[in-house]
Amino acid sequence: MLLEQINEPNDIRKIPKEYHEQLAQEIREYLVETISKNGGHLGSNLGTVELTMALHLTLHFPEDKIVWDVGHQSYTHKILTGRREAFKTLRTYKGLSGFPKRSESPCDVFDTGHSSTSISAALGLVQARQLRGGTETIVAVIGDGSITGGMAYEALNNASKLDSNFIIVLNDNNMSISENVGGISNYLADIRTSEGYLNLRDKIYYSLNGKSPKAVTGIRRAKNTLKSIMVPGMFFEEMGITYLGPVDGHNIPQLRRALRAAKRIRKAVLLHVVTKKGKGYEPAERHPARFHGASPFDIATGLPAGNGGKAGYSDIFSTVMVKLGARNPDVVAITAAMADGVGLKRFRNIYPERFFDVGIAEQHAVTFAAGLAAGGMRPVFAVYSTFLQRAYDQILHDVCLQKLPVVFAIDRAGIVGADGETHQGVFDLSYLLALPNMTVMAPKNKWEFSDMMKFALTLESPVAIRYPRGEAYDGLEEFRAPIEAGCPEMIYEEKEVLLFAIGGMVKTAEQVRRILKEHGHACSLVNARFAKPLDAGRLKAYAGAHRLVVTMEDNAVSGGFGEHVCKLLQDEGAKSRILCIGVPDRFIEHGKPAELYEALSMDAEGVSSRILDALAQMEKP
Amino acid sequence: MLLEQINEPNDIRKIPKEYHEQLAQEIREYLVETISKNGGHLGSNLGTVELTMALHLTLHFPEDKIVWDVGHQSYTHKILTGRREAFKTLRTYKGLSGFPKRSESPCDVFDTGHSSTSISAALGLVQARQLRGGTETIVAVIGDGSITGGMAYEALNNASKLDSNFIIVLNDNNMSISENVGGISNYLADIRTSEGYLNLRDKIYYSLNGKSPKAVTGIRRAKNTLKSIMVPGMFFEEMGITYLGPVDGHNIPQLRRALRAAKRIRKAVLLHVVTKKGKGYEPAERHPARFHGASPFDIATGLPAGNGGKAGYSDIFSTVMVKLGARNPDVVAITAAMADGVGLKRFRNIYPERFFDVGIAEQHAVTFAAGLAAGGMRPVFAVYSTFLQRAYDQILHDVCLQKLPVVFAIDRAGIVGADGETHQGVFDLSYLLALPNMTVMAPKNKWEFSDMMKFALTLESPVAIRYPRGEAYDGLEEFRAPIEAGCPEMIYEEKEVLLFAIGGMVKTAEQVRRILKEHGHACSLVNARFAKPLDAGRLKAYAGAHRLVVTMEDNAVSGGFGEHVCKLLQDEGAKSRILCIGVPDRFIEHGKPAELYEALSMDAEGVSSRILDALAQMEKP
Repeated sequence: MLLEQINEPNDIRKIPKEYHEQLAQEIREYLVETISKNGGHLGSNLGTVELTMALHLTLHFPEDKIVWDVGHQSYTHKILTGRREAFKTLRTYKGLSGFPKRSESPCDVFDTGHSSTSISAALGLVQARQLRGGTETIVAVIGDGSITGGMAYEALNNASKLDSNFIIVLNDNNMSISENVGGISNYLADIRTSEGYLNLRDKIYYSLNGKSPKAVTGIRRAKNTLKSIMVPGMFFEEMGITYLGPVDGHNIPQLRRALRAAKRIRKAVLLHVVTKKGKGYEPAERHPARFHGASPFDIATGLPAGNGGKAGYSDIFSTVMVKLGARNPDVVAITAAMADGVGLKRFRNIYPERFFDVGIAEQHAVTFAAGLAAGGMRPVFAVYSTFLQRAYDQILHDVCLQKLPVVFAIDRAGIVGADGETHQGVFDLSYLLALPNMTVMAPKNKWEFSDMMKFALTLESPVAIRYPRGEAYDGLEEFRAPIEAGCPEMIYEEKEVLLFAIGGMVKTAEQVRRILKEHGHACSLVNARFAKPLDAGRLKAYAGAHRLVVTMEDNAVSGGFGEHVCKLLQDEGAKSRILCIGVPDRFIEHGKPAELYEALSMDAEGVSSRILDALAQMEKP
Repeated sequence: MLLEQINEPNDIRKIPKEYHEQLAQEIREYLVETISKNGGHLGSNLGTVELTMALHLTLHFPEDKIVWDVGHQSYTHKILTGRREAFKTLRTYKGLSGFPKRSESPCDVFDTGHSSTSISAALGLVQARQLRGGTETIVAVIGDGSITGGMAYEALNNASKLDSNFIIVLNDNNMSISENVGGISNYLADIRTSEGYLNLRDKIYYSLNGKSPKAVTGIRRAKNTLKSIMVPGMFFEEMGITYLGPVDGHNIPQLRRALRAAKRIRKAVLLHVVTKKGKGYEPAERHPARFHGASPFDIATGLPAGNGGKAGYSDIFSTVMVKLGARNPDVVAITAAMADGVGLKRFRNIYPERFFDVGIAEQHAVTFAAGLAAGGMRPVFAVYSTFLQRAYDQILHDVCLQKLPVVFAIDRAGIVGADGETHQGVFDLSYLLALPNMTVMAPKNKWEFSDMMKFALTLESPVAIRYPRGEAYDGLEEFRAPIEAGCPEMIYEEKEVLLFAIGGMVKTAEQVRRILKEHGHACSLVNARFAKPLDAGRLKAYAGAHRLVVTMEDNAVSGGFGEHVCKLLQDEGAKSRILCIGVPDRFIEHGKPAELYEALSMDAEGVSSRILDALAQMEKP
């Protein structure tokens, strides 16, 4: 095993080049083996094995710096920087993160997780290097999916004026999570498939000299359109970024030559590298979307290891959207490169003209939805909680301000698990509740989710419905009172303690109620349904009938549902004590949701014991 | 007066074309006259008189639709759509807004205020038109400054696949608020100054036919660089957007021809229009930055009408940054196209290598700052509260997650006045307080602001300092205890009522205290200094000594400082009543800050009477 010789950063430099291919093979096997057990981003990592190796053969760590866009493709980098053994703990609680972490290694220089940040961050490192007089090489590695995100363009626009080296590797696998969309994607495809592009030597020569007659002669002449009178990369060149490429992303010698050439350019240079997602593992090559973020799977067949379990909220959403689409021709659906993940594939197949995949572009998605709503449509934007953060201003300024009826279907709200800090959906209530005109709901179970979606489309104003990752709860089926604006649902009415829970925490509250009963305390359980608006009259009445009100939410306590309830009860002059259960004011690492909720004392045991403490406290004089 | 014949939408079509120039002149005079009294965006409106006239001569309202990017250039559109008389009330309380408002006229189809949203919104309207089978013409008008915002690029990327007409007018005046920056700006300048570009007829012919040999022969050949083998607009063409232009933005016949040609293209077409900011009013042509958003001025001289008043917080910031820059070579400053507005011109002039204007690109600005901080610098990003909303995810994901020491100098926090709904800085506390690792401060007066800036640069974590528009308070000079993390400042210690105020509201609280004293109530006054972290121990002690705690902030109550205090006191088991004073849960229109604070019962009189009510309420059994 060559891989066993890789124990420290830069150890790869000791491997003779005739063994590079074998090492790549071993890395691929190790990736497949580990991800088949732990789950993780398989396709993107298999696609970047040679690129990462070439970077490590050309640069020196930790002096040189790579910012990995999104960061889910950094597994080989981890393996090559002293984390080979630790890699077995990938994405497990207290184990290695699936993303770059400065806390894990000095070879990780910038934490990532969300898309399109790498060029901005790396440009900051470049400017800092210039001010410090440093000489290290700084590289941003960004995918062709991520480059459709607006902030990548903002960063390119700013990189154009650099007079110092900055390498942007465009890792072009012609995919974001699923198929790419839009003009840039078509443009890159044109370059990839162009037969007439300059060969690598000419391209490097051109880039270094800028005005080579030799390169000029290499330009292919178009048959009949102006557009094709171009050298590849004109789009980037016109922004002021030197373009190099495309080069074969699975050819290490070619990559090393290109990187060496790129290092010599005293400005921002974009190196266009063409890779294949899932490269070397046949099931991943065939099903790139499925193996983008894979659950544990059987290596031989590529099939998921589990039986799939019960339907998740994304599945329910899929079914509901098809029904709503049939019932109302004005319903349109929007996704930002996540048709699979959010459950919009069926809607897309049935109503292609009413389905819009905007690419990784959440800002555009929201304002585009606002435009559709202003034009008389009923847009539903389905998005993960953590990614909707990118469009905070657009929700406020383009949707809420005009009170436009856009429905936000917020998937992966709450603790999401193995993706960790950058992906936990625990801020949406905090940022949505402060927005005027916004209605915010969360369902207790799958039936309520379906009812809420229908209700949302009856409102003439913005609505958000948030729901957790994974299994949709199928308990409490008998409680299905019609949804009324702002109105909570009494589930069990007793006295003493009121559990006022929202969304996924209603299930936990049921268990808490049983535990507290064992300890001799009677508990009412109210399903909040609405985080906004809150029904002041009902809340006051509830509070009056209980000495302790416990709010329960899978969102940050800070700015969350509980704080709003607390303030409202204060306004109403309620005398009962209030205990707010939710995510504490820190970032939450990766691990299984159950492990994390337990660690946060947000599982049934944890919540119960906090309530018992509070009750004991109240007994004191 | 021709202008008197313009009373309804489309009335301009009755004016014979030989009078168009005269009408343009009258509109300019009316703009200068009104803005010289009311203040407003002069330069951009003077620059778009002919463009707006040409649009109104080519389209029909309200059937056809224009989405004005930012919207501050829509004054002529207002004048031409039945709001000529009302225009005299521009930007005054209950008068016309300085931005498009659907509530004002059916000819305003989408509210704007922030930059770079128009293409997304208009694309939504276009898709809605297609689904409805409509035939109206839809136009987005976007400036060359706004097009550097990432979401404009996201929208262009999505517009490329349209098979229906969509006109994007690029209003290129070679300025955002001040000079433009970046690759795109240079690129547009290249086109503008190119002598070899096709003439208009060829360009239209090419666009309509796509493969004209005639056009091919018109391409200018480069002398020695590959880059110049291009037709203008290749950047847009390569994204899949048809490019038309550049055309003279002050030549109505040429604009009309170009617009008619653009209407015939069955895809997204970008019409590049070159205009001059401030056109026709000499002081505005000479000082475009000063006349971007102008205060009332003397028409003859162009000089501001007022005497300038006392120093504002932006002035204090300017002075402090120069000092901090001298003291610490690691301090770097960032602005998003607002060096003037935020007070970074002096820093830029003294430390050009440590100053970064990133253009209208707040997302990039924040992650770039994070990169600089990760590279060892001490970045200060100075930005208006409302525009920082654009970078919410970057603050959370790129700065707070890694606990990077970025300082956010948040100007124009609180009610900003005449710019109204889209510009009020009343959400920053709500969205910042929920972010882990963030410290949030607000100064009571100018000396404290200076102390806070110095303190901020001693922290090894993210810090935000928010301060209002206009005059920096110069009272309470004698209270200048050293800043300690989380520690509030007791100003007047009495009993009964505790005024716990932050930032600009400390001044108001002083007045409230006097009024309450007249009513026989003793008041303590505590300057919070920190909205985060809050000092639980001190707060509990304060609350224990008073029967009513009144939080005062110029931010939304929802999710704001007061709610956090309320929750904390509840946790601490405090028994005192809490009254939260702040901005209510709705969008706040335009008007003078004093008028608005009064209308919101947030001025001294209003707050006092709410406190007296609360005290009366508490007397009841």
